[in-house]
Amino acid sequence: MLNPNFPVIYYGGDYNPDQWPEVIWKEDMRMFKAAGINIVTLPVFSWAKLQPSEEVYDFEWLDKVMDLVAQNEIKVCLATSTAAQPAWMSKKYPDILPVDINGHKRAHGGRVNFCPNSSVYRRFSTALAKKLAERYKDYPGLAVWHIANEYGNYCYCENCAASFRAWVKQRYGTIEEVNRRWNMSFWGHTIYDWDEIVAPSHLNEMWLDNGRQCTNFQGIALDYNRFMSDSSLQCYKAEYEAIKEITPDIPVTTNLMGTFKPLDYFKWARCMDVVSWDNYPSAVEPVSNVAMRHDLMRGLKDGQPFMLMEQTPSQQNWQQYNSLKRPGVMRLWSYQAVAHGADSVMFFQLRRSFGACEKYHGAVIAHAGHENTRVFNECAKLGAELKALGDKLIGSTARSKAAIMFDWDNWWAVEFSSGPSIRLKYLEQVEKYYRCLHSMNISIDMIGIESDLSAYEVVIAPVLYMVKPGTAKRLESFVEAGGVFITTFFSGIVNENDLVTLGGYPGELRKLLGIWVEEIDALFPEAKNSIVIKEELGTMKGTYSCGMLCDLMHLEGARELAVYGSDFYAGRPALTENLYGDGRAYYIASDPEEDFLKDFIGYICGAGDIGAALDVPENVELTQRFKENKEFTFVLNHNDFAVDINLGSGCFSELITGKTAQIMLSIEPKGVAILEREI
Amino acid sequence: MLNPNFPVIYYGGDYNPDQWPEVIWKEDMRMFKAAGINIVTLPVFSWAKLQPSEEVYDFEWLDKVMDLVAQNEIKVCLATSTAAQPAWMSKKYPDILPVDINGHKRAHGGRVNFCPNSSVYRRFSTALAKKLAERYKDYPGLAVWHIANEYGNYCYCENCAASFRAWVKQRYGTIEEVNRRWNMSFWGHTIYDWDEIVAPSHLNEMWLDNGRQCTNFQGIALDYNRFMSDSSLQCYKAEYEAIKEITPDIPVTTNLMGTFKPLDYFKWARCMDVVSWDNYPSAVEPVSNVAMRHDLMRGLKDGQPFMLMEQTPSQQNWQQYNSLKRPGVMRLWSYQAVAHGADSVMFFQLRRSFGACEKYHGAVIAHAGHENTRVFNECAKLGAELKALGDKLIGSTARSKAAIMFDWDNWWAVEFSSGPSIRLKYLEQVEKYYRCLHSMNISIDMIGIESDLSAYEVVIAPVLYMVKPGTAKRLESFVEAGGVFITTFFSGIVNENDLVTLGGYPGELRKLLGIWVEEIDALFPEAKNSIVIKEELGTMKGTYSCGMLCDLMHLEGARELAVYGSDFYAGRPALTENLYGDGRAYYIASDPEEDFLKDFIGYICGAGDIGAALDVPENVELTQRFKENKEFTFVLNHNDFAVDINLGSGCFSELITGKTAQIMLSIEPKGVAILEREI
Amino acid sequence: MLNPNFPVIYYGGDYNPDQWPEVIWKEDMRMFKAAGINIVTLPVFSWAKLQPSEEVYDFEWLDKVMDLVAQNEIKVCLATSTAAQPAWMSKKYPDILPVDINGHKRAHGGRVNFCPNSSVYRRFSTALAKKLAERYKDYPGLAVWHIANEYGNYCYCENCAASFRAWVKQRYGTIEEVNRRWNMSFWGHTIYDWDEIVAPSHLNEMWLDNGRQCTNFQGIALDYNRFMSDSSLQCYKAEYEAIKEITPDIPVTTNLMGTFKPLDYFKWARCMDVVSWDNYPSAVEPVSNVAMRHDLMRGLKDGQPFMLMEQTPSQQNWQQYNSLKRPGVMRLWSYQAVAHGADSVMFFQLRRSFGACEKYHGAVIAHAGHENTRVFNECAKLGAELKALGDKLIGSTARSKAAIMFDWDNWWAVEFSSGPSIRLKYLEQVEKYYRCLHSMNISIDMIGIESDLSAYEVVIAPVLYMVKPGTAKRLESFVEAGGVFITTFFSGIVNENDLVTLGGYPGELRKLLGIWVEEIDALFPEAKNSIVIKEELGTMKGTYSCGMLCDLMHLEGARELAVYGSDFYAGRPALTENLYGDGRAYYIASDPEEDFLKDFIGYICGAGDIGAALDVPENVELTQRFKENKEFTFVLNHNDFAVDINLGSGCFSELITGKTAQIMLSIEPKGVAILEREI
Repeated sequence: MLNPNFPVIYYGGDYNPDQWPEVIWKEDMRMFKAAGINIVTLPVFSWAKLQPSEEVYDFEWLDKVMDLVAQNEIKVCLATSTAAQPAWMSKKYPDILPVDINGHKRAHGGRVNFCPNSSVYRRFSTALAKKLAERYKDYPGLAVWHIANEYGNYCYCENCAASFRAWVKQRYGTIEEVNRRWNMSFWGHTIYDWDEIVAPSHLNEMWLDNGRQCTNFQGIALDYNRFMSDSSLQCYKAEYEAIKEITPDIPVTTNLMGTFKPLDYFKWARCMDVVSWDNYPSAVEPVSNVAMRHDLMRGLKDGQPFMLMEQTPSQQNWQQYNSLKRPGVMRLWSYQAVAHGADSVMFFQLRRSFGACEKYHGAVIAHAGHENTRVFNECAKLGAELKALGDKLIGSTARSKAAIMFDWDNWWAVEFSSGPSIRLKYLEQVEKYYRCLHSMNISIDMIGIESDLSAYEVVIAPVLYMVKPGTAKRLESFVEAGGVFITTFFSGIVNENDLVTLGGYPGELRKLLGIWVEEIDALFPEAKNSIVIKEELGTMKGTYSCGMLCDLMHLEGARELAVYGSDFYAGRPALTENLYGDGRAYYIASDPEEDFLKDFIGYICGAGDIGAALDVPENVELTQRFKENKEFTFVLNHNDFAVDINLGSGCFSELITGKTAQIMLSIEPKGVAILEREI
Repeated sequence: MLNPNFPVIYYGGDYNPDQWPEVIWKEDMRMFKAAGINIVTLPVFSWAKLQPSEEVYDFEWLDKVMDLVAQNEIKVCLATSTAAQPAWMSKKYPDILPVDINGHKRAHGGRVNFCPNSSVYRRFSTALAKKLAERYKDYPGLAVWHIANEYGNYCYCENCAASFRAWVKQRYGTIEEVNRRWNMSFWGHTIYDWDEIVAPSHLNEMWLDNGRQCTNFQGIALDYNRFMSDSSLQCYKAEYEAIKEITPDIPVTTNLMGTFKPLDYFKWARCMDVVSWDNYPSAVEPVSNVAMRHDLMRGLKDGQPFMLMEQTPSQQNWQQYNSLKRPGVMRLWSYQAVAHGADSVMFFQLRRSFGACEKYHGAVIAHAGHENTRVFNECAKLGAELKALGDKLIGSTARSKAAIMFDWDNWWAVEFSSGPSIRLKYLEQVEKYYRCLHSMNISIDMIGIESDLSAYEVVIAPVLYMVKPGTAKRLESFVEAGGVFITTFFSGIVNENDLVTLGGYPGELRKLLGIWVEEIDALFPEAKNSIVIKEELGTMKGTYSCGMLCDLMHLEGARELAVYGSDFYAGRPALTENLYGDGRAYYIASDPEEDFLKDFIGYICGAGDIGAALDVPENVELTQRFKENKEFTFVLNHNDFAVDINLGSGCFSELITGKTAQIMLSIEPKGVAILEREI
Repeated sequence: MLNPNFPVIYYGGDYNPDQWPEVIWKEDMRMFKAAGINIVTLPVFSWAKLQPSEEVYDFEWLDKVMDLVAQNEIKVCLATSTAAQPAWMSKKYPDILPVDINGHKRAHGGRVNFCPNSSVYRRFSTALAKKLAERYKDYPGLAVWHIANEYGNYCYCENCAASFRAWVKQRYGTIEEVNRRWNMSFWGHTIYDWDEIVAPSHLNEMWLDNGRQCTNFQGIALDYNRFMSDSSLQCYKAEYEAIKEITPDIPVTTNLMGTFKPLDYFKWARCMDVVSWDNYPSAVEPVSNVAMRHDLMRGLKDGQPFMLMEQTPSQQNWQQYNSLKRPGVMRLWSYQAVAHGADSVMFFQLRRSFGACEKYHGAVIAHAGHENTRVFNECAKLGAELKALGDKLIGSTARSKAAIMFDWDNWWAVEFSSGPSIRLKYLEQVEKYYRCLHSMNISIDMIGIESDLSAYEVVIAPVLYMVKPGTAKRLESFVEAGGVFITTFFSGIVNENDLVTLGGYPGELRKLLGIWVEEIDALFPEAKNSIVIKEELGTMKGTYSCGMLCDLMHLEGARELAVYGSDFYAGRPALTENLYGDGRAYYIASDPEEDFLKDFIGYICGAGDIGAALDVPENVELTQRFKENKEFTFVLNHNDFAVDINLGSGCFSELITGKTAQIMLSIEPKGVAILEREI
C-alpha cells in the first residue's frame, strides 16, 4: 500500500506555482480544495530556480509553496526537478549535452537533454535530490518521491562510447566473447581491442527507413539499447539511493510512459517502490490499448497497484488533432485506470501554463482562471466521488488466469530484424492478442519473460522471437504442469544476442511445440492466404483470412488443427496443438484476421473457467480487483448510449451511488459502476 | 510615381550579358527593341566578375553593357549583385558561410548562402553597392536600384547567436524581462546571464514534423524569426543607405516573394522606396491566390503602385511540373498584375541561360536564339500594347472598402503553436476569405496590423491569434465608428510574445466580440460538425458544414446568428454578431465550407455598397484603379471561352483597342479589357 | 571463355567458413557436392581476420579452407576481402573513414565505408590483394579473382575535394575552361583559383527532394559523379594491377549491381576481364526488367558472356517483403540468366549466417543445417542439370539486330535536370522501350553510347538528352547506311557538360531527325494528351494516350506520322519520320501509352526480319545464344500454367531432357527448355 497513513485514492497532479505570481497561489488552493484535490506534484521543472548557480541553492520559494500546500492539507508528490538542467550548467559543462544518433552535438534547451553518462549530470542531479530530501524529510505531507521526469533519451557521445565499452567488458569479459556474441566475423567486423568498439549510430551501422530504425548488426544495436536503458536507470538509481538514505519510508517512483520503447521498464521497475505512469491516449486509440498499458504497468511489479501520475482532464497539445475529452470521458478513463489497478488519479496539469508549448494542454484550471467551466466541474465531481470511496479499493489487486508475455528485448530484436517483413511490429501483435481477450472481458496480466507462471491457466507469447536462457525450460514446466501455452510465427528464432538457434526453427521451443518450421514466407501487403479449420472447435470453423508471414512447417509430434488454404503450401499446417505433459502448446503459423483469434481464444478459454465475470454488451469493459474476501467489479460503459447489465443472481453494493445492485443494472452513456461483494 | 521623367509601364526583365559573349549583346539589343522592352535588370549575380579579388574591382565589362543599353534607350534597374558572394571571399573569410538549422556549417555555393550577421558580408556588400552607385550615379538610364536578390536565409552560427543576444537585450533590457516574456519558468529554462541565451534550432528547441517547423518555446522561436528577418533587413539597409547617399533620387527596391514566410515584409517595406516582387504561380494556383499576393504587395506600402519584378514568359524550371503558359496567359497575368497595382511588367529572364539550373526557365529569347517563337511573339505584342498605354495608368491606385488583415508575426505564431490542430494553416485561412471576396469581385486591400482602418467599411482578420499592443483598441474604435469587423476561431488568444491573455478567450477582443470562448475542440480530418443558421440572413440559411476547430462559447452581449448542429455542443453559438458603437463585430467559431463564407460575406457586403463594379460571369476578374477623376476598370477573362459583359448604362473607353465600349463588351478567351471613364 | 580448362557453367556462390567452426567445414563440403556445386567465392569479408594488425597477416585458416575445397575439387572465386577494412585500421587512420553528402564524418562499421581516395585504403587494400595473389597464385582451383564487393559509395571529405580539384585540372586544364564548362557565370560562381572548387554536397549545391537528388549546378554535379565513379575504379584498378602482375592468366572481376546509378559501369567494364553481377529482383519486378539488366551486363563488354555472381536461392532479407521464390522460380531465373548470356549460376549464400543482418537471407544450406529442405533439393536438382549441360553453352553469344542505348552520364544528367518535369526518370523510359521489345521476344543488345552500331538494323535511344562528342555523327552514319534510329522527347538537348546546344532542339540530332522543337510542355500527372495516327501503319492506327512531356515541334524535312489530339498544339506533329540516306530516323515527341509503343515497334520491326524466333504465348520468354554453327533457343515459361509451343517445321534437341523436340513442345509451369539446332 502506497501510504498506510493516508489510504485514499490520490487525486491531483502536476502543479507549477513557479510559473505564476504568489497572488495566484492562494487562489490555486481554494480551487484545489473545491476540486477535491489531495495531492500535488512539484517542482517538476524548477532546477534552474532551485540552483541558480553551481554554488547557490534557493529553496525559499519552494518552502513557501509547500507550507501553503501543507496548510491546505494537500499531500506532495515531491519531484527532484532533474529532467532539465539549468542553462548555466550546460554552458559551464558542455559535456553534459548529448550527441544524437546523427552525430549532432545538441545545444542547451528542451528537456531530458543531457547525456545519461555525464558525470556532471549525475553529480549535480544526485546532489539536488539529496538537498531536497534533507530539507523536506520531515515535511508532513511528503507522500511520494518523483525522480526527474519521463526519462528516455539516447546519447552517442564519446563519453557514452567509453561507458559502452566498459558495459560490454563487464557483460562479456573478453574480446573473443564479444566477437562471438555479436557474430563479428560477419562483414569483417572482428575486433582485437576494446576501443575498437564503436557506438552504433547513423554514422555507421544504423539508418532510418520509413521511420523504422534499421541496423546492420543486431547484436551491437540490441546491446546499445540495453546499455542506454541502463544508463538512464543509473541516473535514476543514483538519485533513488541518495533519497532512500534520508527518507527510507517514503515510496520513490519516476513517471513511466506505458509502451515506451527505449527503456526496459521491467528492469526499471525493480528499482522503483511504486510504478507510476503517464496515460495520453488519443481520442481514436482503442480502449483495449489503454487497458493493456495499464495492465502492463501493473505487471511491471507483479500486480502491485500503480499510480496514474498524469492524464489530461480535457485535451493534449502535442497530438495532431487535440480533441476534447467528451463529457464523462475523463471520469470514465480515470475509473478505467483504477479498474486496472491504479491507486491514484492525477492530472497534468492543475493550472494551464500561459506560455511555451504546453499552454494548450488541458488543465483542471483553465486560462479563464475560474471554476465555472465544464472541465473544472467534471474534475470536482470526480474528486468528490473518489473521496467518498475512501480506502475501499486501496491495495486491492487483480486475480488473472490468463497472461500475455511482453519483453522489451524481444521488441527491440523483432524490429531491428532485417527481414522477413517490415510489416511485422511486435507491439501491434501483442495489442492484437490483448484486444481479443479484452473484447471477451477476460482478465489479463501483462507479464515479463521471467515472471512466475504458476498462477495462470493460459499464457500467450505473441512473436516470442527471442528466447532467453531459461525461458524455454520455464515454459515447458508450465505446460507440463497443465498450462496452455500459445505462441506464433517468428518465435523461438534467436537467443538473447539475436543469434539464430541452429538446427531448425522454432529453436528452443521446438520440443514444446512439436513442430519444425522449414521456411518463412513474407506476403506483400495486398496478398492473403487462409487458415482452413480441419475439425470444428467451439465456434472455430471454416476458413479465416491470414497474411504478412506464413510459416511452412512440419509436424514433429504436434497435430494440425488447421491448414493453409492456398499457395504452394496449401494443405500444410497453419495451426498446431502439441500435448505436452498435462498441458497443451499451440502454434499459430501466420497473422490471422481477428475473428480467428476470437474464436480460437474462445475455444481455449471456454474449456477452462477464465471467462468474463458478467455477460455484458459490446464496448462495456469489465475488470475486477480483490482485497481479502472482497471482490470489486468495475463496469465501464464505453458506449455513447446507456446499457443494461444482467447481474443474474448476484447481489452487489454499488460503490459510487452507495446503492444495492440486483438483477439488472442500468449504466448511463460513458458511465461507470463499481460492484462490491464478498466472496 | 516611380519615375516622373519616364512615366510608362516598365517592360523588360533580368538580363545576364556576362553569361554570353559580346557578339550576342548586339543581337540582344535588336531583339529587346523588337519586343518593346524599355528596361533591363542587371547585373544580378556578377559579384565575382565585378570584384575578382579583395582589392580589385572590374567594371569595364559592365560599362560596355550599360553603354550599349543606353545607346538603345533602355533603362536600367541596377542590381547590386550581392546575393552571391565570390568564391574567393568564402574561402578567405569562412565566417561568411552560414550554419543551417541542423547545425551544419554550409560550404560555398548556391546563392543567398551567407550569414546575414557576417560583418565581412556587410562590409563587402555595402562597399560594392557604394562603388556601383559612385560609378553609375550619372548614368542616364538609371531607373531603379535593385539590392541583392530574394533575401531570406536564416543562420544559426555562433556569430548570429551573439547578435541575437544583443538584439534581445536591446528589445527587453533585462534578463528578468526576457525570462518573463519567454515564460522561461516553463521546463526550467530560467536564465541568469545573457550568454545563456541559445539560438533555437534543431539542436535544442525545434524540430520538423511533416514539414511543419515545431518548437518547444514559441517565444524564443518567434523572436528568432523576428531577429532573422531583421538581420537580413540590416544587410539590405546598409546597402540602401550607401546608395541613397549618392543617388538620393533614384528609387531603391529589392525583389520580394509574395507570401514568403521567413521575412516580415511589412517591416521591410518601410525601408523600400518601392515594393517589387517576383510572381511565380504554378499553372494550378487559383487565380485568387495570385490576386491576393498582388494586393498584399500593394498593401505593404499602403496602396502605392508596385513593380512586378519577375515572372516567367512561359514556364518555370523549379516546379514539379513546369507546364507552358498557354497562349494569352502570359498577357492575361501581366495585366492582372497591372490591374492590382503594378506599374511594371518584367520577366525573369530575357535570354535563356544555357547552363546550370535555370536553363529550362522560360525567357523572352529562347535557346533557339531568334524571334520566330510563340513566346517572343506574345512578348512583343504585349510590349507594343503597354507602350500604347503610355502614362495613363501610372500612379493610379485602388480604392477598396474592404480589407483583410495580414500579419507575419501572427503567421509564425499560429504555425509554431503546439495544438490544437496541425491542420490550421494561417495562409490557407487568409486565402479562403480572400477567395470568397474575390469571387464576388469585391475590391480588397491586404493590410497590416497597424494600418489605418478609417477608409474601410469591412475589415476581416481571419485567425487573429496574436493581438499586439494597441490592436484591440484600434479595432474597437473602427467598429465604434460604424465599421464591420469579422474574425474567427483561434483569435485573441495571445500577445506579441505568444503569452496567453488570461481571463478567457478571445482575450483582448472579448469586449468587442461580446463572447467568451471556454474551450476549443479539434476535429479529426474526417470529422465534421455543422453550422445551423437561426434566421435567414440574405442567402444565408439552413445548414453548412464546418470542421477543423470548433470553439465552445458563451454569449456576453453578442447574439447568436447560427449554432452548431451536432456533437455535445450542438445548439451552442457558432456565429455571433455583437453590436458595438455604430458598428458590428462578427465571430465565426469554426472553419466553415466556402458556401457559408460566400453567403455570409454576401450578406455583410450586400448591406453596404462594396460589391463588384459590374456584373460578370464566373472566372472573370474585375479590379479598378483610380487616378484623380479617372476610373480604370480591368476586366480579365480567366476562362477558356469568350464572355460577354453587360456594361449597363456605362460608357467607357477601352484602352487597349482604343475603342468605345457600351452596352455589351465581348472578351475573348484569356482576354483583357481596360475600361476608362471619368467619375 | 572464362576458363578453357574448366568449360562448364560455374555453380556455387559466397562461402563464409570463417563465420563457422571448423567442424562445420567438412559438412559443408559434403553438402556442396550433393548440390553439384563446383565453385565457391571466398573470403569476401575477412580482411580483419587476414590482417589482424598493420604488420601481421594470417593466412593459415584460409589455407586450411582452400585445401579442403581443393580436395573436394571445387574451384575458388578468390575474393580480395577489401570491401570492409578492419576496425584497427579505421581507429589508427581515421582519414580512411568517408564523409557523407550531408557533411557527416562516418564512424567505423557497415561495409564499403571507406573514402575511395584514401591513400591508406589504397595502400592496404592493394597490399592485401598482392599478398593473396602471391600466396595462392599456384592454387590449382583458382578460377576467378573477385575484387572487393559491390563498390559504390561517394565521399565528400577534404581529401576527396583535393582529388576532385586534381581530376578537374587534369580534365579541363585551365580555370577559364572550368568556368566555361560549368557555366560559372551563372549565379556569380566564377572562380579564379583551383582551390575555389568545392565538392557539391548538401552543404551547398545539392539537396534531396522526395528522394530525388537535386542540384543548382548540373555541370559540377555531373563531374563529381564521374569523379566518384572514377575514384572507386582507381581502387579497383590498383588491386587489379597488383594481381595481374602475379597471375596474368586468371580472369579478374568485381561484382556489379545491374542498373546501379552511382558507377558508370561501361567505363568500369573496360578494366574487367569478365563482367559479373548480383541479381536481386523482388518478387514483383517485371521479368523484362531482369532481362534488361542481364542484357546490359552482357553489353558492358560487347556481348561477352558474363557471370551471375549472386542471386538468392529463396528469399532476400533487405527488401520490404522478402517472399520466398516459389517452387521452380529459382531454377527458372537461373536459366534466364544463362539465356541472356551468363556462364555461371551463383548464390549468395551457401550457408546461412546465424547472426547480423543477413541471417534471414536465403541460402543453399538453411539454419536447419541439413539437406532435407525444399530449397536444397531445388538447388541440387539444378546443379545436376547444369552439370549435364557440360560445355555446350559456354562461350556462346547473342546475335541481336536491335539495340537500346544506355548511358550513365545521360542518366545522371536527365535526373539532375531542374525542369521540365520531375516525373521523367531515365531508367523507367529505357525499361519501357525494352519491355515493349521484350514482350515480342525481340533479341536486344543493351549498348553504350560509343558501341559499334554496324551490326544492328534498329537502334533505340530513349531520352538521349546528352549528346556527347561524335555521337551525332555516328548515328548519322548508321542511318545513312540504312539503319533505323528511334529517339524521343528531351533528346539532343545538351553536350557532355550539360550545356544546351544552342540554335534549337534537338541540337546535334536536328539534322538527322529533320525537326525543330520549339517548346517543351510538362503535363501534370493527371493530365493527358493524345497521339493521333494520320495513316494506318501496320497495327498502328487511331488514337493513343500520351503525357508527361509534349514537344511542340516544326518539321524541317521530316514528315509527320501522327499529331497531337488536343490542347493548343492539337494537330502539330507528335511522331515524325525522317528519311536520311538509306535509313530512317524517328522522333516520338511525348511519353505514350505502351500500346502505342508495341504497335510502333511492331511496325518498325515487322518491316525488317528482327522478330521472335518462335511464336509463343504471353509471358513465355524466348532468347537465343549462338556458338559457331549452333543455335540455342531458351524457352522460359514465366506462367503459373503449362504452355504448348508450336515448333513449326523445326526439329530441335532439347538439352535438359536430352530429347528431340518437334512440332509441339509442352513446358510445365515455370518450366524451361533449351532447344539446340544447327544453323
